[in-house]
Amino acid sequence: MSGANLLIAQSGGPTAVVNASAAGAALAALRLRGIGGLWAAEDGLVGLLDGRLLDLRAAGRRALRALSRSPGAAFGSCRRGLMDAADRERALAELRRRDVRIFLYVGGNDSMRTAADIDRLARDSGYELCVVGLPKTIDNDLLVTDHCPGYGSAAKYLATTVMEAGLDTEALSSSDRVNVIETMGRDAGWLAAATALARRGGDDAPNLVLLPETPFDEDRFCSAVEERLSRIGRCVVSVAEGLRRPDGAYLRAQDGEFGADHFGNAQLGGAALAVKAVVESRLGAKTRFSIPSTAQRVAGHWVSGRDLGEAAAVGRAAVGLAAAGLGGRMVTLRRLSTSPYRCTTGSSSLDEVAGRTRSFPAEWISEDGMGVRDAFLEYLRPLVLGELRPALRGGLPDYPRLERRYL
Amino acid sequence: MSGANLLIAQSGGPTAVVNASAAGAALAALRLRGIGGLWAAEDGLVGLLDGRLLDLRAAGRRALRALSRSPGAAFGSCRRGLMDAADRERALAELRRRDVRIFLYVGGNDSMRTAADIDRLARDSGYELCVVGLPKTIDNDLLVTDHCPGYGSAAKYLATTVMEAGLDTEALSSSDRVNVIETMGRDAGWLAAATALARRGGDDAPNLVLLPETPFDEDRFCSAVEERLSRIGRCVVSVAEGLRRPDGAYLRAQDGEFGADHFGNAQLGGAALAVKAVVESRLGAKTRFSIPSTAQRVAGHWVSGRDLGEAAAVGRAAVGLAAAGLGGRMVTLRRLSTSPYRCTTGSSSLDEVAGRTRSFPAEWISEDGMGVRDAFLEYLRPLVLGELRPALRGGLPDYPRLERRYL
Repeated sequence: MSGANLLIAQSGGPTAVVNASAAGAALAALRLRGIGGLWAAEDGLVGLLDGRLLDLRAAGRRALRALSRSPGAAFGSCRRGLMDAADRERALAELRRRDVRIFLYVGGNDSMRTAADIDRLARDSGYELCVVGLPKTIDNDLLVTDHCPGYGSAAKYLATTVMEAGLDTEALSSSDRVNVIETMGRDAGWLAAATALARRGGDDAPNLVLLPETPFDEDRFCSAVEERLSRIGRCVVSVAEGLRRPDGAYLRAQDGEFGADHFGNAQLGGAALAVKAVVESRLGAKTRFSIPSTAQRVAGHWVSGRDLGEAAAVGRAAVGLAAAGLGGRMVTLRRLSTSPYRCTTGSSSLDEVAGRTRSFPAEWISEDGMGVRDAFLEYLRPLVLGELRPALRGGLPDYPRLERRYL
Repeated sequence: MSGANLLIAQSGGPTAVVNASAAGAALAALRLRGIGGLWAAEDGLVGLLDGRLLDLRAAGRRALRALSRSPGAAFGSCRRGLMDAADRERALAELRRRDVRIFLYVGGNDSMRTAADIDRLARDSGYELCVVGLPKTIDNDLLVTDHCPGYGSAAKYLATTVMEAGLDTEALSSSDRVNVIETMGRDAGWLAAATALARRGGDDAPNLVLLPETPFDEDRFCSAVEERLSRIGRCVVSVAEGLRRPDGAYLRAQDGEFGADHFGNAQLGGAALAVKAVVESRLGAKTRFSIPSTAQRVAGHWVSGRDLGEAAAVGRAAVGLAAAGLGGRMVTLRRLSTSPYRCTTGSSSLDEVAGRTRSFPAEWISEDGMGVRDAFLEYLRPLVLGELRPALRGGLPDYPRLERRYL
């Protein structure tokens, strides 16, 4: 087989649309004359290091097309970077052994660091390799790109969930008066903020939004909850898992029970329990809580059509960059206008985004720190548009899986 | 206004389809000549005691019809029964004062006890009142009826959520190998069991289902998780919030932090955290958890079409019973056949269902106690069928609210 060998891999938490990016890239590569082997590393970097590669040509167009409607990460993903010199040597050796000349890595900011590492590694050792990153994170916290594929779908799911929780709380305000919904978002409040889209009238849920960007002020929070309870009899609170106290410590129910991943990121989940404890002990109001957790990133049954379309476009653009020999870059989404919404793809250097976090902008946080401004909602609105129901069987989604054919 | 005055009220936790039952009843009553006032008690029994009644004739047909597609409980609900003699006197006095002659109460087993109480109270004091109960509970734990409106939609939502969590766990089995999803279900495992519908192949999620009907055997559970981890590298566990230890104590993360409602029911939520702690401490496998909580009962964006249709039919049947003067009864759903699915409405005496719980049948639990048998899935399959997308605005549901016009 002539042409450059292309390897694609998925990294970090799955999303509802990361397979659309991977399939978009693979289908674009299949249409290119200059591509030889078209492979995927199983379980991201882990499979590259272990030499576990899947043959996407053998999988075929039809399977790849079907894949783009399935949430998860069809090739397998990982939470691991290049840890030491041994890792780096092994990664390069594997790429050389297979004569991989194009490496596409789909992931968030930690994964872009890995991609940047591999790019540098190849350059330093004189191995010709075109590395292109594809943004993927429901956290929406990558720099340079207007937004990240995966975010729109998670935002749509969370805003819908909070809207529905609001109706639940309205119905039961004679007893269960407070409801706390915890979103993901370790360092940036993009997901918690997105729940504000559920609000159509002034006192709709969410009544308060707690972001990691605003240190948790227990007194002000309790006053705000109390005001809602006395005026409308209920309060729905969205809280980011990464909410911190003024001293920088994460708010969480059970310190010590949560671990950390390879990148040193604390495994969170429990801010809702901590907020519940505050409300119940200080205000005596019965408080429910929901922790959707992984459900918010893989809700293929309620995906944003626009998000899915843009994820596929990012995949195609990555292959376009590689075909033009533009390595060391990450594809970006460039918004040209919001009304009407127009967006195109662009690119950024990997080093600009690697390992860095884009906080939720201070100018989009309301004055009291527990809400968002309209300018953010204007930014967000186009990203959740469009419905795409998955194929169904027996009333449930019928998500295809990729048959894994190893090299 | 001539004719009998009809009062309807909603009680207990909201569902995705309880408004369809209420609207179904109200629309049927509007078509009857013999009905005078058509009212709803705000916040269930609480509004009856306080004399807060809504005028449904003033609301109008169009609003009632729109209502049936909105999750929650549009008239307001409560978690309160008749507590003492003062309550009983007050309830009867309010019914007399408004000359209410038909009382429809929509709820679960605690609410049916309240309905039975009111029925007895009226009879004992010689006040002519026709009391009809409408079953409503995602817990599916009412006796006599084949199933309960609300269950099919919650089952569809939870099975979809666990299916999607399964894809998430498959993708990340190189790091996050165990995922625990907590369902509602205080005393009966119907909801946790329903997640088994997600499984299309032998090793699909959920790999294990923990029901309140099977005391939690930590050793057997750990062995079962270990077997999955060594064979397929991952394990997705569905756990009912009401899972108990062999000594009868609820499994929960933080004893003492959870209250109880008026009926003495413990407020749960935390079994997933307890299971996570067991897996991490004994097997050292990183474990994620999700607690969808209220989201599972009001997921109007992913409702079962059949459930919604049956909920409306239950509302109509309740009015039919009342028109025939058959009080002291609850409407039931009677399954005539499963394949093809045929179901009609019937009725049961309120006393037969009041305050009693229908456990998940022992013969539907698998031998190891951590799964369900095919006979249950055959029972469940018809109940989740049919899609009905809500009206949408800006990519999110556009749920109507009832404008509350007080009497």
